[in-house]
Amino acid sequence: MAGSYFGNILRVTTFGESHGAGIGAVLDGFPAGMELTEEDIQVYLDRRKPGRNSISTPRREDDLVEILSGTFEGKTTGTPIALLIRNNNQNSKDYSEIADCFRPGHADYTYECKYGFRDYRGGGRSSARETAARVAAGAVAEKFLKELGVDFCFYTAAIGDVVIDPDRFDPELILKTPTCMPDEEANEEAVRLIEACRKEQDSIGGIVKGVISGVPAGIGDPTMQKLDARLADALMGINACKSVGVGDGMFAAYTRGSENNDAFYTNEEGFISKRTNHAGGILGGIADGSDIILTAAFKPTPSIAQPQETVMLDGTPKALVIHGRHDPTVVPRAVVVCETMCALTILDAMLSNMSARAENVRKFYSTEE
Amino acid sequence: MAGSYFGNILRVTTFGESHGAGIGAVLDGFPAGMELTEEDIQVYLDRRKPGRNSISTPRREDDLVEILSGTFEGKTTGTPIALLIRNNNQNSKDYSEIADCFRPGHADYTYECKYGFRDYRGGGRSSARETAARVAAGAVAEKFLKELGVDFCFYTAAIGDVVIDPDRFDPELILKTPTCMPDEEANEEAVRLIEACRKEQDSIGGIVKGVISGVPAGIGDPTMQKLDARLADALMGINACKSVGVGDGMFAAYTRGSENNDAFYTNEEGFISKRTNHAGGILGGIADGSDIILTAAFKPTPSIAQPQETVMLDGTPKALVIHGRHDPTVVPRAVVVCETMCALTILDAMLSNMSARAENVRKFYSTEE
Amino acid sequence: MAGSYFGNILRVTTFGESHGAGIGAVLDGFPAGMELTEEDIQVYLDRRKPGRNSISTPRREDDLVEILSGTFEGKTTGTPIALLIRNNNQNSKDYSEIADCFRPGHADYTYECKYGFRDYRGGGRSSARETAARVAAGAVAEKFLKELGVDFCFYTAAIGDVVIDPDRFDPELILKTPTCMPDEEANEEAVRLIEACRKEQDSIGGIVKGVISGVPAGIGDPTMQKLDARLADALMGINACKSVGVGDGMFAAYTRGSENNDAFYTNEEGFISKRTNHAGGILGGIADGSDIILTAAFKPTPSIAQPQETVMLDGTPKALVIHGRHDPTVVPRAVVVCETMCALTILDAMLSNMSARAENVRKFYSTEE
Amino acid sequence: MAGSYFGNILRVTTFGESHGAGIGAVLDGFPAGMELTEEDIQVYLDRRKPGRNSISTPRREDDLVEILSGTFEGKTTGTPIALLIRNNNQNSKDYSEIADCFRPGHADYTYECKYGFRDYRGGGRSSARETAARVAAGAVAEKFLKELGVDFCFYTAAIGDVVIDPDRFDPELILKTPTCMPDEEANEEAVRLIEACRKEQDSIGGIVKGVISGVPAGIGDPTMQKLDARLADALMGINACKSVGVGDGMFAAYTRGSENNDAFYTNEEGFISKRTNHAGGILGGIADGSDIILTAAFKPTPSIAQPQETVMLDGTPKALVIHGRHDPTVVPRAVVVCETMCALTILDAMLSNMSARAENVRKFYSTEE
Repeated sequence: MAGSYFGNILRVTTFGESHGAGIGAVLDGFPAGMELTEEDIQVYLDRRKPGRNSISTPRREDDLVEILSGTFEGKTTGTPIALLIRNNNQNSKDYSEIADCFRPGHADYTYECKYGFRDYRGGGRSSARETAARVAAGAVAEKFLKELGVDFCFYTAAIGDVVIDPDRFDPELILKTPTCMPDEEANEEAVRLIEACRKEQDSIGGIVKGVISGVPAGIGDPTMQKLDARLADALMGINACKSVGVGDGMFAAYTRGSENNDAFYTNEEGFISKRTNHAGGILGGIADGSDIILTAAFKPTPSIAQPQETVMLDGTPKALVIHGRHDPTVVPRAVVVCETMCALTILDAMLSNMSARAENVRKFYSTEE
Repeated sequence: MAGSYFGNILRVTTFGESHGAGIGAVLDGFPAGMELTEEDIQVYLDRRKPGRNSISTPRREDDLVEILSGTFEGKTTGTPIALLIRNNNQNSKDYSEIADCFRPGHADYTYECKYGFRDYRGGGRSSARETAARVAAGAVAEKFLKELGVDFCFYTAAIGDVVIDPDRFDPELILKTPTCMPDEEANEEAVRLIEACRKEQDSIGGIVKGVISGVPAGIGDPTMQKLDARLADALMGINACKSVGVGDGMFAAYTRGSENNDAFYTNEEGFISKRTNHAGGILGGIADGSDIILTAAFKPTPSIAQPQETVMLDGTPKALVIHGRHDPTVVPRAVVVCETMCALTILDAMLSNMSARAENVRKFYSTEE
Repeated sequence: MAGSYFGNILRVTTFGESHGAGIGAVLDGFPAGMELTEEDIQVYLDRRKPGRNSISTPRREDDLVEILSGTFEGKTTGTPIALLIRNNNQNSKDYSEIADCFRPGHADYTYECKYGFRDYRGGGRSSARETAARVAAGAVAEKFLKELGVDFCFYTAAIGDVVIDPDRFDPELILKTPTCMPDEEANEEAVRLIEACRKEQDSIGGIVKGVISGVPAGIGDPTMQKLDARLADALMGINACKSVGVGDGMFAAYTRGSENNDAFYTNEEGFISKRTNHAGGILGGIADGSDIILTAAFKPTPSIAQPQETVMLDGTPKALVIHGRHDPTVVPRAVVVCETMCALTILDAMLSNMSARAENVRKFYSTEE
Repeated sequence: MAGSYFGNILRVTTFGESHGAGIGAVLDGFPAGMELTEEDIQVYLDRRKPGRNSISTPRREDDLVEILSGTFEGKTTGTPIALLIRNNNQNSKDYSEIADCFRPGHADYTYECKYGFRDYRGGGRSSARETAARVAAGAVAEKFLKELGVDFCFYTAAIGDVVIDPDRFDPELILKTPTCMPDEEANEEAVRLIEACRKEQDSIGGIVKGVISGVPAGIGDPTMQKLDARLADALMGINACKSVGVGDGMFAAYTRGSENNDAFYTNEEGFISKRTNHAGGILGGIADGSDIILTAAFKPTPSIAQPQETVMLDGTPKALVIHGRHDPTVVPRAVVVCETMCALTILDAMLSNMSARAENVRKFYSTEE
């Protein structure tokens, strides 16, 4: 099935494998007239790119993006924005060993079951490299959202059991620490944990948290396309994500209504507001104007250098040792993927919201002369 | 936007409000030739219906379903199956008080922001009553999945901090206990907790867990339509759901790769299998043939009889006391909603999977004469 | 496949068979706040309904529509508008003869091939009765378009070789003549032709023409969702339609560029306009602000009372005589179906157009406070 | 809106402008395991490319396709097939004159109205060059359809009033004559007409006809996704197409039911067949197993070298003379575009048809072990 697209009015389709000619995305439905350069996108890709520091894989991927279409004289034209990232640091020999067996925790076995064979080089399309294409497209959406007053603050909230301390929260650190943690102490502790994992030929999971501010109340759709459901889809679809929460998330299950309900009041500027935000900014699938708060939990990197029990294509047992260069944790690099997937989701919902009221449709077409 | 549909090849569209003429669903893309009667659907609706026992709202909703189209001589015809449930126990007077204010934890405020006004009777379309339409459609999907060897076991895993004990797990109890817990002791404790909440004019959250067995390896799509992402969408879109997990879910974040990876081996019947199932049956967005394991966390019912701080439409403060009949917990009734939404998701993925391999397409069209 | 929906942002899903419980439509994505009553819809259904006059089938179908959802206090709420038309003049005995053979020119054979069996009563879902559901949904769209200044003039342009004379064009006649021709003389001649066909147990085809005025320049999308392509889809999907043309349609093939190009000029009010309209109001898939002109050609009613050669389910030859009450021509009743399908198409395109420019998105969200 | 995609299960998204970095397509949902090389696609692109002969524009466009993703070891993998055609014969200076005015018959004015500005170089995205991306994607679909026994015969049926004679029909000529006419005499006459148009700085329209054989009975969907409606959408969406017909097309309007109905009979091999094929192979939106017959009428090339009346962006009158190299007729190059768009439509319908019957779904999943 045509399963490589995301979104309704704003729709991104990604393509590409880890070791083919390249990966990319086509972003369709983006409004005309926003300024856009390759550099605008590149800064987001650079946040995802490996090899930036000691805790990341030493693989170098330049991940240089080319805008193939959809801009003219530095502005979007309203037509599809095609983005291409050539693959150029492929080392197919690294993966020859896994061609005929199934790596535990990876999609080798399921692709083989679905398609009958697979591009085994670097995991093919199941490689997390595919998420670079999402970041490139989402960067375009996020740029526009910033113009509309929507801001994103996504960061690593935990690596294993090393959790950030809200009292030490410093957003400036997110782009500076190798873990993307906004807490210097937690970052240092997490780096030690990651290094220990690497030495033990092991890996570790963690949690990404995101806060989206400035989304107007009323964004999102009821029932089947609830904003929280679409965000859950956006985040759960990221490689290695195993859980998604909104607001208090799983902890809401343990609370009482009298604690969990967010009281409404009128604030000093005269706007209706909420005393608390257990709901995480979404009520009935629609944004309530307060911060949208999300968490996404990631499993540990499945590629570890310890010998692992597995089988060959024909079912013969095999003790697999995965060589190559792998991050001991996916979490820091997943932060920007989560952020940009949410940007695609939010902008799509904002565009679709423009026709929610007959009065706005009437106004739009009466002022157009 | 057209936000009331779910699914691709198999697509359900729901309609209706709590206090309008009725609610219903149109299920499009369902294969021709499956036996189907209203009774097949009714048994699922009866599991969702309120007033079945002491812990539930005393409201009576008969929720009788009528098949309006799509069957002939007791079998599906391949054309849209329209299902209608008339509303017939409406008591609009109950809701007159909330017409001009916003209930905390409800969608009143966000609907008002989005649409400029709202059907305030019983929450209108934001009422959990809408989920009856999903259950009706999902029941049709689940009936067919059972014929295909796919089984569903969904139940209440926790009410507040009362958690079931796996050692006492008895699936027979799920349809018998008022809490839908498969553990008699936990059920009794949970009933006491719920009764306490009711007396305190409060409510409590909880967790639904689901196990789907028999899904063939290979079902699902990579990248943007991953099976776990679609299941997360299905579950997070249910009223009051705040978190979704697959397999170990959030706990995967705290583990190491060496623990979390599920080793492959060849079992006694000669099939490739896994030693453990931390992944919850999905790898790279595609089913691996083992049980699919899901959790969904629900917040406490927002309608509580305690006085709550809120505001009127114009921002004036108001101390709201919600009258009417409300469940102190949504969890037991949400079980069948989770189950049937997952059935719609899984069947859709199974139908779409039929064209995944060229050899299957060739075989299909060569044997057809 | 889920093939019963039409539209993107504004999406209609129809359901129902000729002789089941009823037919209907769910209209999703319609803006909130437009006044709507059942009577608004009924006037369109009455234009489609049979038995209005001598040239139509004497079957009575009351086709009374019920709004099941999506309105509150006389206004649309932004949630799905479900419309139900109960079947109540069914005479299943009329159709018993055709249960085991294939009527020429009908979908009996193809449904049997696709689904393995079929609801043979009155053609089941392949009955033109399904178009009543489209008319009901399209009536809602057309009501809103009229508020936005878009007007529809659809009529019968030809019955067989009886063609209207543009010099005698009187739009008042469209709703008055039994043929829906806007030309009294042509109408009379066409009535005679239709009566002759009836006597000869035969039927006749014809042409519907439509003019849509007031569509703003800029509506529609380039490449795959061109406005003319979507209109062609809308019209060709109507039962018995065999050809669709835009502007000069097929005749454009015989002309030269110097004749066919419509020169631009600035009119007296200072607006850019066109000297001619061979293009039929659409250039590059996007409305140019002039009238959108469409033609749809319909084949003769396939149900005729003459003996016809056909086969039974098992291939045995059969001389079929179709009894029952059938219109000798489908054209007059198809007029309102064409009109309302185009209304759904145009409104969908207008809603989607609201987010085409970044400046409009910025303005929309900056003025919202 | 996201208007650049076509298809449901098999979905193509195109991107690119005439004078940007390149054009391309992403084909998503294509089954795994079909052999595919760039050469397979190139032969189709070569049929569309200009400069092949005297009647075509002397512009050279190499239109070399690169497969960016979706194949491995010469076979499709089931993941998106991205196809890129670099633009390399751009001469932006040719188009500087039209940057500030609207060419009659072109999309300059409507793009300006929709988006507020436009990429004027060679028409940008409205250029017929975009159709090369469709041809590339459609070539992949057609290759597979041929393996499934579906054959395509598309050709030029008329240039202006020069119409082919069925008695001289020779399919071998289609790829040999410059007009793509399967009739040597008509071709010669048409070439003379085209040359005359060129000398008179004028252009001419024409008609493409297509016959698709081997489509199994049962393919297509009833009501809103009728196979003929989807084919009409596919064809009308091609640049310069103004009319689409199925079977007898527009001429069906002039006939009687007794002539137009195709009688069923059982043929010598024991298969149910039809005596005639006025319906063009589709009944009730579903293929009946006979040839699918289509016609598409194209307007004359709007770019002509005669002086034409038009206006500047600000409405000032201008006498426009279009320089540059333009085909006097679009018809011969449109043939392969029509053919491949139909291939995408038919394959999509065939894939979706696999789940139409419950018995086939059961069989598929019971034999899979």
